[in-house]
Amino acid sequence: MEFLVAIQVNLPPSMPEGETAALLAQERQRAFELKRSGAIKRMWRIPGRFANVGVWEAGDATELHDSISSLPLFRWFDVQVTALARHYVETENR
Amino acid sequence: MEFLVAIQVNLPPSMPEGETAALLAQERQRAFELKRSGAIKRMWRIPGRFANVGVWEAGDATELHDSISSLPLFRWFDVQVTALARHYVETENR
Amino acid sequence: MEFLVAIQVNLPPSMPEGETAALLAQERQRAFELKRSGAIKRMWRIPGRFANVGVWEAGDATELHDSISSLPLFRWFDVQVTALARHYVETENR
Amino acid sequence: MEFLVAIQVNLPPSMPEGETAALLAQERQRAFELKRSGAIKRMWRIPGRFANVGVWEAGDATELHDSISSLPLFRWFDVQVTALARHYVETENR
Amino acid sequence: MEFLVAIQVNLPPSMPEGETAALLAQERQRAFELKRSGAIKRMWRIPGRFANVGVWEAGDATELHDSISSLPLFRWFDVQVTALARHYVETENR
Amino acid sequence: MEFLVAIQVNLPPSMPEGETAALLAQERQRAFELKRSGAIKRMWRIPGRFANVGVWEAGDATELHDSISSLPLFRWFDVQVTALARHYVETENR
Amino acid sequence: MEFLVAIQVNLPPSMPEGETAALLAQERQRAFELKRSGAIKRMWRIPGRFANVGVWEAGDATELHDSISSLPLFRWFDVQVTALARHYVETENR
Amino acid sequence: MEFLVAIQVNLPPSMPEGETAALLAQERQRAFELKRSGAIKRMWRIPGRFANVGVWEAGDATELHDSISSLPLFRWFDVQVTALARHYVETENR
Amino acid sequence: MEFLVAIQVNLPPSMPEGETAALLAQERQRAFELKRSGAIKRMWRIPGRFANVGVWEAGDATELHDSISSLPLFRWFDVQVTALARHYVETENR
Amino acid sequence: MEFLVAIQVNLPPSMPEGETAALLAQERQRAFELKRSGAIKRMWRIPGRFANVGVWEAGDATELHDSISSLPLFRWFDVQVTALARHYVETENR
Repeated sequence: MEFLVAIQVNLPPSMPEGETAALLAQERQRAFELKRSGAIKRMWRIPGRFANVGVWEAGDATELHDSISSLPLFRWFDVQVTALARHYVETENR
Repeated sequence: MEFLVAIQVNLPPSMPEGETAALLAQERQRAFELKRSGAIKRMWRIPGRFANVGVWEAGDATELHDSISSLPLFRWFDVQVTALARHYVETENR
Repeated sequence: MEFLVAIQVNLPPSMPEGETAALLAQERQRAFELKRSGAIKRMWRIPGRFANVGVWEAGDATELHDSISSLPLFRWFDVQVTALARHYVETENR
Repeated sequence: MEFLVAIQVNLPPSMPEGETAALLAQERQRAFELKRSGAIKRMWRIPGRFANVGVWEAGDATELHDSISSLPLFRWFDVQVTALARHYVETENR
Repeated sequence: MEFLVAIQVNLPPSMPEGETAALLAQERQRAFELKRSGAIKRMWRIPGRFANVGVWEAGDATELHDSISSLPLFRWFDVQVTALARHYVETENR
Repeated sequence: MEFLVAIQVNLPPSMPEGETAALLAQERQRAFELKRSGAIKRMWRIPGRFANVGVWEAGDATELHDSISSLPLFRWFDVQVTALARHYVETENR
Repeated sequence: MEFLVAIQVNLPPSMPEGETAALLAQERQRAFELKRSGAIKRMWRIPGRFANVGVWEAGDATELHDSISSLPLFRWFDVQVTALARHYVETENR
Repeated sequence: MEFLVAIQVNLPPSMPEGETAALLAQERQRAFELKRSGAIKRMWRIPGRFANVGVWEAGDATELHDSISSLPLFRWFDVQVTALARHYVETENR
Repeated sequence: MEFLVAIQVNLPPSMPEGETAALLAQERQRAFELKRSGAIKRMWRIPGRFANVGVWEAGDATELHDSISSLPLFRWFDVQVTALARHYVETENR
Repeated sequence: MEFLVAIQVNLPPSMPEGETAALLAQERQRAFELKRSGAIKRMWRIPGRFANVGVWEAGDATELHDSISSLPLFRWFDVQVTALARHYVETENR
């Protein structure tokens, strides 16, 4: 099942640069794993913000939560999840 | 998988009483079917409003949409769906 | 360039069934054309609503507007467009 | 009487891990007590968030407040309470 | 148990004056009954609006809904209910 | 003249317990004074929150502000004031 | 006592021109009366909208409601009232 | 002085096509006049909506209101005006 | 030209009292200057809040910004500006 | 392609003056570069706020994000981007 997931990252601007850099490196590594495993199907950056929107795949909302919360920046996230249903334009022929 | 579904019904106050009564009778019949089939697990009325909130069960968001849109008042609905994940208090022993 | 487009369709519940059916048939036909041409890349239904969210492709916002407004139900739409930027998880190797 | 209770937990990301772990352990213990006592009837996690929604049972809003505020993380909560009325689908036969 | 109930009345300005007057007369009669019976404990008008806020008494949210929906203008209401808990300033001596 | 006053108290969770306890003791003392003097006519706790809603009496908005701002927790308040007008159900006989 | 009153006028665009013109003429007449009587102290138009904001004088919220609702367009109003308190810059010397 | 003006046009979808076409022709004519006169300095369409945002020039808010309300579709507008101040990047050298 | 300016002051409750007192003294002095110069025409306190609403006079939005930002508490302000147009009730005779 | 970009800058009032001054000097330098390069076409200050709105030019949303995030104050920004389409008043003759 697919979910639309909008993530705003609220890192405090006062965080020391070294700490930020280390966190971001870990975040990238885990994000690539989720992409390769198919948990993240597509992801885009929201221009002008430290935020993204993505299409995630998970068996259910519990598995989705486990995927999202496995990201190292999770504790700074503000997340909105929308469950997605099939649209006819994707599934029918004409 | 469970979903929290909040439904506000916006029937126009100007609808003739006979038409309203017929629609509500059909709505009740379909709602009871969804309850007996397990698609609706629990449902409550929001006091003071023609609105309800319920816990629905569906294989995925597509099946959920089919259940909700099978209700005869669907075209007057304003619906908000929240996908629900397992909470530890429901699933672990102590 | 990709855009996230959320469309809520506000057809009046009082529209005669024949008129609704004719409009929806035209809408489906045009939606399939936009899908085949690549203007609509992916589209999902928002469960419980007459609404969808999709990823659209257009050269710029003017071309996007032309695509969206070519849909026969356009005059009943409430549309929110978000311009999408590239996310590193889509573009880099590791 | 039943209430729908939505709880967002706003623990500061900067809280030391040991302190967080100790608080969460106390929270789990108290949550299980409220579940066993019937104050919490059902509870779900909101995917992607440190948040939950639950159905609580209490004699009135004062007793409900006492239950919610007995949780050790209460001071970090943002809580929305909705009083729930009986819906016909739960109470009538057909 | 007490509830704070905010009611906005959305009568269409185009309603014929005779119909409005008849409805308002019925509304007043029922409102006085609810006041005398104690279902409405206090009620105020929101200045500049066809709206009121009141303190209502009911055994639970179901009884509250029955009281509110017994008002003849109910189908034009937009209602917000807040369950009220005891505040220490009302219940303790010093 | 009566006012509906909704007060959310935003004490920082990190405040030392002794400081909180001392402030709350002063707050209770002043709240009881305002209750006895008639400035606070009725007050309720919003369940699940460190918040209250009350009916206050004051000659005008300036006197109301002086009453509210005399509470020791005032600097942590987020306050919404609604001026209240007489509703017919309170003032007429039938 | 002074109040800040924001009024949005929602006349239906479909109202026949003659009816609109007659209503507006009555509105102007009553508005001038309220201005001369001092009920309206100052009033401004919100640019681009059929809306205004004004400073009104009334003994209390009940008298204010009577003034506002005496305007012929009242049934098409959406009104927000803010009770105003004295600011030191108006009342003290330096 | 410059203003940012956002205009949403809410033409009813049920308006007969001939009436819509005539109104739009008049709107275009007046819009071009405002553009040529300098009242409208720049204007963009909001993609997916019957809406625009523009930079307008006017001596003050009264003159701005006169310009906006001279458009034939004005009665269907929902308008938000933001007064604009000079930004250093426009006015200083470096 | 007149502007409606709403200012919410967000001083941190943890600011040392001496610092607060010094800032407020400077604020008062500058506010009186703006009042005497005519930049502030009228100002009111919003009851229950550290907030005010006022009618300001300025040649344009740039001059208005210079006046507002000359207040010593400016960096703690959250400000909403509304440009005001002439209302007929202020400008015509009858 | 043009974008409307609204930027609110949330510098903490507690930042030491020297640090603020250094950051602002860097910000100005980079803002002038973006203006000269054409990335920023027009920019205005929102009166009363540390905020601006501007018309930006970029090949797509990714390039726009790179421009915005090159500003030294980026980590304190709250940014809203609106993709802009061509309006007929800019592009046609009459």
